[in-house]
Amino acid sequence: MENVLTLNLKNAEAFISLEETIAFAGQSVRHLETLNAGTGAGSDFLGWLTLPSDIQVQIDKIEKAAARLRSITDTTVVIGIGGSYLGARAINEALAHSFSPYLKQKQAHEILFAGQNICEDYFSELIEILDERNYSIIVISKSGTTTEPAIAFRILEQHLEKKVGKKETEQRIIAITDEQKGALRSLADANKYETFVIPDNVGGRYSVLSPVGMLPIAVSGLNIRALAEGARDMELITRKNKDITTNPALLYAAARNLLLKGGRLVEIMVGFTPKLYFFAEWWKQLYGESEGKDGRGIFPASVNFTTDLHSLGQYIQEGQRILFETVISVKNPARTVTVPASQDDSDQLNYLAGRRLSEVNHNAEDGTILAHNDGNVPVIKIEIPAIDEYYLGQMIYFLEISCGISGYMLDINPFDQPGVEAYKKNMFALLNKPGYEEVGRELRKRL
Amino acid sequence: MENVLTLNLKNAEAFISLEETIAFAGQSVRHLETLNAGTGAGSDFLGWLTLPSDIQVQIDKIEKAAARLRSITDTTVVIGIGGSYLGARAINEALAHSFSPYLKQKQAHEILFAGQNICEDYFSELIEILDERNYSIIVISKSGTTTEPAIAFRILEQHLEKKVGKKETEQRIIAITDEQKGALRSLADANKYETFVIPDNVGGRYSVLSPVGMLPIAVSGLNIRALAEGARDMELITRKNKDITTNPALLYAAARNLLLKGGRLVEIMVGFTPKLYFFAEWWKQLYGESEGKDGRGIFPASVNFTTDLHSLGQYIQEGQRILFETVISVKNPARTVTVPASQDDSDQLNYLAGRRLSEVNHNAEDGTILAHNDGNVPVIKIEIPAIDEYYLGQMIYFLEISCGISGYMLDINPFDQPGVEAYKKNMFALLNKPGYEEVGRELRKRL
Repeated sequence: MENVLTLNLKNAEAFISLEETIAFAGQSVRHLETLNAGTGAGSDFLGWLTLPSDIQVQIDKIEKAAARLRSITDTTVVIGIGGSYLGARAINEALAHSFSPYLKQKQAHEILFAGQNICEDYFSELIEILDERNYSIIVISKSGTTTEPAIAFRILEQHLEKKVGKKETEQRIIAITDEQKGALRSLADANKYETFVIPDNVGGRYSVLSPVGMLPIAVSGLNIRALAEGARDMELITRKNKDITTNPALLYAAARNLLLKGGRLVEIMVGFTPKLYFFAEWWKQLYGESEGKDGRGIFPASVNFTTDLHSLGQYIQEGQRILFETVISVKNPARTVTVPASQDDSDQLNYLAGRRLSEVNHNAEDGTILAHNDGNVPVIKIEIPAIDEYYLGQMIYFLEISCGISGYMLDINPFDQPGVEAYKKNMFALLNKPGYEEVGRELRKRL
Repeated sequence: MENVLTLNLKNAEAFISLEETIAFAGQSVRHLETLNAGTGAGSDFLGWLTLPSDIQVQIDKIEKAAARLRSITDTTVVIGIGGSYLGARAINEALAHSFSPYLKQKQAHEILFAGQNICEDYFSELIEILDERNYSIIVISKSGTTTEPAIAFRILEQHLEKKVGKKETEQRIIAITDEQKGALRSLADANKYETFVIPDNVGGRYSVLSPVGMLPIAVSGLNIRALAEGARDMELITRKNKDITTNPALLYAAARNLLLKGGRLVEIMVGFTPKLYFFAEWWKQLYGESEGKDGRGIFPASVNFTTDLHSLGQYIQEGQRILFETVISVKNPARTVTVPASQDDSDQLNYLAGRRLSEVNHNAEDGTILAHNDGNVPVIKIEIPAIDEYYLGQMIYFLEISCGISGYMLDINPFDQPGVEAYKKNMFALLNKPGYEEVGRELRKRL
């Protein structure tokens, strides 16, 4: 097919042969069947499998809510952390103007993020600019008590009320939370905020195609129908397809697990455009949080080339041979810039005159893949025609389903995250949260 | 001392005892002596050792040039890649307003970066905003022929000339390059651009305290005297000090190499504020490019907490035990925000009412370090009183000298980067650069 993501293992074949991968992929197929049957670990959290179709009935409501926020305000603060943050940010930043806040003629609606950290300076500076802005809030939290977003929402809800009054604030806040229970649900109902539901059977890192991601993406002016369509087309290609030669999700899961067995402990997600930076962050959570348990899992890292060829390039070329790379290769850029000619050619670039930057960039990509191969680094390539909503939708579903399969290959539960609680418990104890005083006393002795 | 960076190994001691570290540190001392004697590998590139003092005579000239650009323009585009990019960006972003382009009342002068990638969309969008701006250019390149910055400079030099004319352009471009030879030197001399020199004995990743970093930092309005002073004070503490208990550079080099021997293949640089994001990128180049050769070196990664506790936190807590963390712990934030009280306390945060966000953040930091320790992750802590020019200057010199020592402990040359050429050669060949046609034919067969 022309208009579809493809997986290219040519530059991994010196490390894992296609025969070996196909043989190993029998396992992938079994795990895909387990996913579909809902009989594996974490099977209460498989709602994302059919989300591209299931979300359809909500798209009208999401678009209407987005249009409303856009009509009454010029800025929306999205409050969330982890899976309630990275998905929307990944899509928005992949498609936003690189210098959008610098544009004199403002484009569309501006999205700012809060509650993804507790840095006092960041928050103070955020409030400083919100003082000057006509803004709305989308707050995303299943429970409403996760410390970072709860603090941000407490402060900004009061800030907005002081600025525009209680009545107007009701119109400007939308909560995405549990259908029935939890602090944010109660608070939203009491204040008559519009709400959307985080499905019970979708974990945070798999939730970008639910209202969690879809509403902030729609508010920024992007086409969520195309995003869902891309995901749905990828669902058709992968979910029931047991043929490893036509199902890239089976192939990716098999290849990376074979590489891990061969001592490749670190996977580096590579983009050749800064626009994919947050997409790689989203991928790091998806794979790191799904697989990093029981002392297992590939450590996920990311780089941005050619920028980082001049920082981490040396390591990748010649450091410890514990790495493999997964390159997101994008065929067509959205804009055009060519290298101009120069009379004196003192910079020796006239051989490039008249050629597009993307041609240089694509040759840098090909050259890098071959160089790293020669340096004993296996490279997997994910190829998409362009960065737009439709292909990002394909990428999301492809990476999600492949992650589920890959987790089962590692014999872990790819849908829980028990380790995330450890720091929270310690933090509560050190802050003397009621009920944690005893633990606090013990911990303080160790500081 | 009160006003100095300190290194805290308490949370690494379960993995490497202080006795063991001190014993091992005998090696550090020897390598520090080799550095000072200039008898080790790469000793042609030791100019950074005394740069905090050597730069003093140039500070007046740098400040004058910066003031000139600030007086005639409101924006400066800094063109550079790798070591000609990350140092200035690390310092500028650590000290800039988090939302500076959003401020209605513009603060000072704006710095934009180019030539650090060849993404066509990024470049096109940059030109779009430069069409509207009154800008100047700082171009940084030893040779003037490195592809990424050379393309950016060729395009922007012509853009600026078209915009403000040849005469005015001469006033608006400053080149930082080789003292005598190279394409950029010739071009700058021919056009009467003001120039600064990249010293021959300072490699890119060690050059932030030379004009390479100092000029862009000064143009953004920061205090480069304080930056140099912090570095000089750290030089006094570390360069001739053979006592591991008072020289943190010896201790850091020893501890991380002991951890590597114990199977910790990946070092994660951790900040608890997004402001340190680019500082960690700078560190990744410094250590990754210095150590990643001959199949050796610790793989450098970075995270931003508490943000990434909700993405990579699970992996760090429970994934493969190949990691250790180095936390940059900052005592005091620059601004104040407190958690407000709430009448109904439905979010259960009233126990935090009246307390500062930084108190919550510090307890998150302590809680995280203990949790990761319990999860079998060694943690090194670098403690500084605040993020300002002076302490960033201390950090820069501390990390540089410790990197030199650490590289010698690994028995590699920490001052070269032979692996960076591999992708360039392939790229030239695939682009049919004159002289590379034959290689190009061979490579194309492998694509």
